[in-house]
Amino acid sequence: MNFKEQLKDYIELVNTRLSSYLDYENGYNSTLIESMKYSLFAGGKRLRPVLALASYDLFGDHICEVMPYACALEMIHTYSLIHDDLPAMDDDDYRRGKLTNHKIYGEGIAILAGDGLLSYAFEIMLDDASKQKDPGPYIRSIKEIANAVGISGMIAGQTVDLESEGKVIDKKILEYIHLNKTAALIVASLKTGAIIGRAPERDVKCMEQAGLNLGLAFQIRDDILDVTGDKGKLGKSIGSDIDRHKSTYPALFGLETSVAYVKELTENANSLLVRYKDRSDFLLELSNYLTKRES
Amino acid sequence: MNFKEQLKDYIELVNTRLSSYLDYENGYNSTLIESMKYSLFAGGKRLRPVLALASYDLFGDHICEVMPYACALEMIHTYSLIHDDLPAMDDDDYRRGKLTNHKIYGEGIAILAGDGLLSYAFEIMLDDASKQKDPGPYIRSIKEIANAVGISGMIAGQTVDLESEGKVIDKKILEYIHLNKTAALIVASLKTGAIIGRAPERDVKCMEQAGLNLGLAFQIRDDILDVTGDKGKLGKSIGSDIDRHKSTYPALFGLETSVAYVKELTENANSLLVRYKDRSDFLLELSNYLTKRES
Repeated sequence: MNFKEQLKDYIELVNTRLSSYLDYENGYNSTLIESMKYSLFAGGKRLRPVLALASYDLFGDHICEVMPYACALEMIHTYSLIHDDLPAMDDDDYRRGKLTNHKIYGEGIAILAGDGLLSYAFEIMLDDASKQKDPGPYIRSIKEIANAVGISGMIAGQTVDLESEGKVIDKKILEYIHLNKTAALIVASLKTGAIIGRAPERDVKCMEQAGLNLGLAFQIRDDILDVTGDKGKLGKSIGSDIDRHKSTYPALFGLETSVAYVKELTENANSLLVRYKDRSDFLLELSNYLTKRES
Repeated sequence: MNFKEQLKDYIELVNTRLSSYLDYENGYNSTLIESMKYSLFAGGKRLRPVLALASYDLFGDHICEVMPYACALEMIHTYSLIHDDLPAMDDDDYRRGKLTNHKIYGEGIAILAGDGLLSYAFEIMLDDASKQKDPGPYIRSIKEIANAVGISGMIAGQTVDLESEGKVIDKKILEYIHLNKTAALIVASLKTGAIIGRAPERDVKCMEQAGLNLGLAFQIRDDILDVTGDKGKLGKSIGSDIDRHKSTYPALFGLETSVAYVKELTENANSLLVRYKDRSDFLLELSNYLTKRES
């Protein structure tokens, strides 16, 4: 299977499983489920679950083992976007070319849809872990994910990001925001695949390092696209970071330096992935694809 | 120890442990931690952790085993209050006589403080579970708690509550709201204590049934206090349910019927608790105290 076929295959696996998880109504919670589905199926790249599946495939043989965790990662990512888009946060009307959750369902339901996705992610993972004979790697994965999205991870990054709007911040704070708001969940995705694939500890560490480089590269590419991107391809406004007086890599260091840094980070990630030889072809192509992406 | 001493003892245990969990700053996330602390130490009754500790004490001998879960229950309860109070939800300026989180820190930080408390609750529980030799009961407890607060529990109840504002709803929907928004976490608290205390399955079921009755009684008492209560004692406005055109037990059935129903539910709970003889004195007194509480 070539890169594009494999990517399509992974995404289909994730979408099918996500659909079955969201086939969940009890006659009362239909608005909640509908609003969760709206954002979960609004055209996301499925990057985090794909990273978890591809990382798992380096080490394990039964990809279904990692599916609940891959889907949970996408739910958590979607929750973070719904809350980020709220008027009290980034106040975005569009994402991926569609109206944001609160523009459709109102702020109250949007907050609850985010809360619901975060809780449901844990429900799904815990349900799976509670059925395992040897729950160790599963509990460890849920813990890694919880740490990545918690108050020393994603939420901390989002808080500092919110507090930094309109302020001039230094490289250290900007890197703290990027590492926590974006890279932490990407690291957790790659680590989860490795841990559930029963990878040796040095390989789990290797995935962690690759994730840090990839995650940072991914966010800086995002910042670059906010300056140079095409609104049609991105599905959201261009220049919104500038409008909100957000400090970004391009704003602090210029476009050229930012592009070079993305290249350097991607090469760092690739040098870690290449040791898995043929098995890591997919992840290497994905890494290069993310560097050049236009959306 | 008499009831009041025991209650004080439990609350002190919880407060000390919560303080140590929130002693957690890394130089960047201080606003987040401060806002989480603000609501966590704003005078809550600690009902859910106390229920978990008291339920544990019916069966187990090492109360420290249940402490992370008891504290997590209080964090989750606090998260739900912070989000409920937001302008897009109940739009409350005061709770327990103090300004609500968003009135102090703004809506953005308040949303993140709620998200942070929910995530941190899972972090704490998973950290504990991952260290256990026999993680079964711990994973089961986390799963019970996740289910109780998730999209077939608390969040579903909150969604239906939000959707029902200004509408006339029937008893079935009102009971759905109360059971999910309030009783589910009270049930989970009592069950968690029993499960981690290694109670036999029939006792776990008994705690579940007692929790359902107590949880419903607790919420209807809340509705009654919204009509008859004293603002000074309650620390929030009286009549806010009526102002928001919320359907409540007193609104649907009148005060007298509501008071009688609280009594009946409390007696149901007590008839389940009394089987543990002397050991359940505390829970019986707590149950009666909740029925008569003025705040």
